[in-house]
Amino acid sequence: MRAIDITEQHPMVDESTDALEAAKLMASRSLPGLVIRGDGKHPYTVLPASQVLRFVIPTYVQENPALARVYDEKASDLMATKLAGRTVGEVMPPRRELAEIPRVNDDDTLLEVCAVMASFHSPIVVVGHGEQIVGTITIRRLLEVLFPDAGPDSEQAPA
Amino acid sequence: MRAIDITEQHPMVDESTDALEAAKLMASRSLPGLVIRGDGKHPYTVLPASQVLRFVIPTYVQENPALARVYDEKASDLMATKLAGRTVGEVMPPRRELAEIPRVNDDDTLLEVCAVMASFHSPIVVVGHGEQIVGTITIRRLLEVLFPDAGPDSEQAPA
Repeated sequence: MRAIDITEQHPMVDESTDALEAAKLMASRSLPGLVIRGDGKHPYTVLPASQVLRFVIPTYVQENPALARVYDEKASDLMATKLAGRTVGEVMPPRRELAEIPRVNDDDTLLEVCAVMASFHSPIVVVGHGEQIVGTITIRRLLEVLFPDAGPDSEQAPA
Repeated sequence: MRAIDITEQHPMVDESTDALEAAKLMASRSLPGLVIRGDGKHPYTVLPASQVLRFVIPTYVQENPALARVYDEKASDLMATKLAGRTVGEVMPPRRELAEIPRVNDDDTLLEVCAVMASFHSPIVVVGHGEQIVGTITIRRLLEVLFPDAGPDSEQAPA
């Protein structure tokens, strides 16, 4: 089995996408991260969900999580609303800080997909065919294929 | 809303757990990571799914992903089987390399949960009450609560 056999078409977002909408998109699809298209054809960025969370929390809280305590309960619940109107490009980490993106080739083996996810600490990888991006692979899909007997129902099944 | 309100009881594994079984457990529950109990009461370790993948790939491939290419397709598909019999303690990263664990208090606000997940790059956090661990919070659960209107069905629902 090759990378292309487990590649899926998940929605991607652009730098101009509303940041809150991007986070909601990730939530609605239960995605473990987002692929962000850059201006050109090639510059993709892949952010794990934990980093997409940065889209919805104030910068000073990111820099010092202890400051989250100064928010009262209600303010915390409302944070998502307050951040509306900013774009992904405005809230994502500076481009120069982003590591090289996790990418596999469509004919890579599943072992190679595992190795790239592990080395990039990324739950989602971009699948390329030459210069083209043909889709993405999530870690959940990879695990489903690696452990077909470990589905949600198998625990209850008789041995 | 506080951390305790969205805390769940996900299974944890021990250092003596079979590594392959640990990875399968994560797959079967669609968990974004695993909490690993140490020997004592306190030393927990939290690994995101991408790092649990290291449980099922050979060490030399982790060190040099390019070496995954030397595996032929069938060998790659069989890798999980070949790793059976090793424990989590044997395959997890050396303890000294593990960063401080992502942990929140049961009365923390959701903003604090966000901030801890973001700063630790972790899709799962341990929830503590004093010295006790009372459960875990996954990023999926957090996103569900932050964006209740962004459920899987809401996209199809009439506005």
